[in-house]
Amino acid sequence: MRAYDIILKKRNGEVLEKEELEYMINGCVNGTIPDYQTAAFLMAVYFKHLTRQETYYLTEIMRYSGDTIDLSQISGITVDKHSTGGVGDKTTLVLGPMVAACGAKVAKLSGRGLGHTGGTIDKLESIPGFKTNIDMTRWIEQVNTIGFAIAGQTANLVPGDKKIYALRDVTATVDEPSLIASSIMSKKLAGGADAFVLDVKVGSGAFMPDVDSAKELAKIMVDIAKKAGKEAVAILTNMDEPLGNKIGNALEVIEAVDTLKGNGPDDFTNLCITLGKYMLKMALSMDLKEAEKRLEESISSGKAYEKFLEFVQAQNGDIDYVVNPTRMLTNDGVYEMKAEQDSYLCKINTQKVGIAANLLGAGRESKDDKIDYSVGFDFLKKPGDLLKKDDKIVKIYYNDEIRLEESISTLKKAIRCGKKENVEKNQLIFDIIG
Amino acid sequence: MRAYDIILKKRNGEVLEKEELEYMINGCVNGTIPDYQTAAFLMAVYFKHLTRQETYYLTEIMRYSGDTIDLSQISGITVDKHSTGGVGDKTTLVLGPMVAACGAKVAKLSGRGLGHTGGTIDKLESIPGFKTNIDMTRWIEQVNTIGFAIAGQTANLVPGDKKIYALRDVTATVDEPSLIASSIMSKKLAGGADAFVLDVKVGSGAFMPDVDSAKELAKIMVDIAKKAGKEAVAILTNMDEPLGNKIGNALEVIEAVDTLKGNGPDDFTNLCITLGKYMLKMALSMDLKEAEKRLEESISSGKAYEKFLEFVQAQNGDIDYVVNPTRMLTNDGVYEMKAEQDSYLCKINTQKVGIAANLLGAGRESKDDKIDYSVGFDFLKKPGDLLKKDDKIVKIYYNDEIRLEESISTLKKAIRCGKKENVEKNQLIFDIIG
Repeated sequence: MRAYDIILKKRNGEVLEKEELEYMINGCVNGTIPDYQTAAFLMAVYFKHLTRQETYYLTEIMRYSGDTIDLSQISGITVDKHSTGGVGDKTTLVLGPMVAACGAKVAKLSGRGLGHTGGTIDKLESIPGFKTNIDMTRWIEQVNTIGFAIAGQTANLVPGDKKIYALRDVTATVDEPSLIASSIMSKKLAGGADAFVLDVKVGSGAFMPDVDSAKELAKIMVDIAKKAGKEAVAILTNMDEPLGNKIGNALEVIEAVDTLKGNGPDDFTNLCITLGKYMLKMALSMDLKEAEKRLEESISSGKAYEKFLEFVQAQNGDIDYVVNPTRMLTNDGVYEMKAEQDSYLCKINTQKVGIAANLLGAGRESKDDKIDYSVGFDFLKKPGDLLKKDDKIVKIYYNDEIRLEESISTLKKAIRCGKKENVEKNQLIFDIIG
Repeated sequence: MRAYDIILKKRNGEVLEKEELEYMINGCVNGTIPDYQTAAFLMAVYFKHLTRQETYYLTEIMRYSGDTIDLSQISGITVDKHSTGGVGDKTTLVLGPMVAACGAKVAKLSGRGLGHTGGTIDKLESIPGFKTNIDMTRWIEQVNTIGFAIAGQTANLVPGDKKIYALRDVTATVDEPSLIASSIMSKKLAGGADAFVLDVKVGSGAFMPDVDSAKELAKIMVDIAKKAGKEAVAILTNMDEPLGNKIGNALEVIEAVDTLKGNGPDDFTNLCITLGKYMLKMALSMDLKEAEKRLEESISSGKAYEKFLEFVQAQNGDIDYVVNPTRMLTNDGVYEMKAEQDSYLCKINTQKVGIAANLLGAGRESKDDKIDYSVGFDFLKKPGDLLKKDDKIVKIYYNDEIRLEESISTLKKAIRCGKKENVEKNQLIFDIIG
């Protein structure tokens, strides 16, 4: 077998055998195939795509390229949730405790943020003492006792995906649905859960800019899960405006706590209920209506909030910061951006908001950047809201005046005000695939 | 500027600026851009192509990536010929002396063979003593005195093309017309001639399998030459059967000598006259009819043959081997392949013949392979010929019995016999672009 022939075959639009994909991916990972051949192969895949079967093979090859996690010591069905990434997406922080409070088991591996979207682990680390580098035994134990645990991804999970992703990232071959789907699903399947809820974001702040391409991605991911003998449902949700009102690590923990107490923004609360009911359906074979009721009760009864406290304590976090979450806001100043005239808030460009948050110091552009947990945005107005001159639109939590200036300049480009008929407001849930 | 953005731009089908192509190619050559980014870029070019203007820029960037040759010390217009490569193509050996005998100046840089097509330098080295590693001063001097000289390509000519070609060769991105054209023309332009006759081969033994794609390549090459302020004409010629009757280094020199003496095969003689008349037209502003007459006279008068002797002597070759060319045939044996029954010779697959010649030892698969000059084929029959049982079709000159067996087995697959209506016989010249 020769890498050249495999590149040529895919370039000509032919379907590859499992052995050919294995030869290519394993050769790339172990260094017997030079990166320039893999790069040419990935660009050929970008143009000629992979069939569902090829995509499944690729997923399995990457899934088994390193360690895999055995969750058989967790009693019952373990359910995992994945989001394709968005701005202001603190869903895991609410969903985990809610679903665990209803009796399901959530064993979650999470990542750090890179680029314009934040990472769950970064958000949790806003709470002093919080640890995610826990070993697998303790992680499984915690899922069995509390029902919910989060660990950072271990070094040797899916090295194949890591290597391929690193190459895609520098060769403009990231945004091909079959490659996105196999990358996500190889990690999920290596993580060992039995069932998956996949939150596929659509819009200006997401991988997938429109509903059609998001639907395609969702279908591919659900197909992979089914081919692997797992359950999965994908939910297409709106990322054309930031999720909830708060963006930034500590601010998002604060909003998560508010939501667990029943005081969260409507859009975010609804998303958590929607994702949660599918998780309960798969984990506990619960009827969707019943699941929704139980999730709402977990909030009104305070059980979801208590579960979050339990979870933070178990992972070494100082729960006093959960009880009094504004303690995390150690920032120097707050700047209030105001409406310049009477108008409507028409649109908030999510990607630009994410970039503006990074300019404040909330995220990282490269792996080794330090995060400033306390900075971020609190939107007091959202698209569709009427603005009177001097109404506060957004509060900016900052530490550095120069960074503040840069962030304001980008944020201004992200917010569009105008006439009522120019308001762009999408529904929260576009579709459910499963 | 970032390589990533340039890859993305081409991947999305956008047109690149000269500065972007410069950044990409120069970065690849000097090592500041990793090969995997160049490989992804080349695959994106394969799918999205280059405009004529981009192709010209790429050619110029590669042309000036190393040394260029100054032919200003040659009096008059120098004309160069390039063939895209074929099997049995000994054209340069006849064309050079013929055209020089008519008064034109031919300063030719030639290459060695690789893969299933032979190289002019290898053929000439069948003549003991023949040297092509002559320095540029002597080369120019020889063109001024004799009218014709051949040098091997110097190390630092078009390093950009060498590097890019090496990457294309292992990433399945060779057969894109804009890349083929810029590769050829960067070398030609760096070689310094004023005018070019481009012999674009079409058919089973050529880069370009059909007339349409060959025409496209021809148009791009002529366009590049014109943009560079040079004259060029491209002639589309048949490579769906081997050119002439003899294939193999010494055998092709023998056939060239026969042709210079007026005893060559019709197809090969006609091709030389056709290419030659366009060379004379460009070099000496000669009318095509007049040029054809002069070329025919150069043969009938013996002047072309004398020019060849002069040329071989000037480049240190032992002319006794030209006078008695069968002395070059130092092979052990000759095997005669015969017709198994009465039939017509319908088709000779050129690429397979080239491969069969390599199996005998006539070519090289990798750079360091040694060539056996004396082996090869002499076709006594060509497509369209009537065969009686036991008629000799081809004589195989060999040195090694095992290699002979392998070669016969491939050659048998190359030759198809059958009914008269199944004869595949194409015209020699498909089109002239200029």
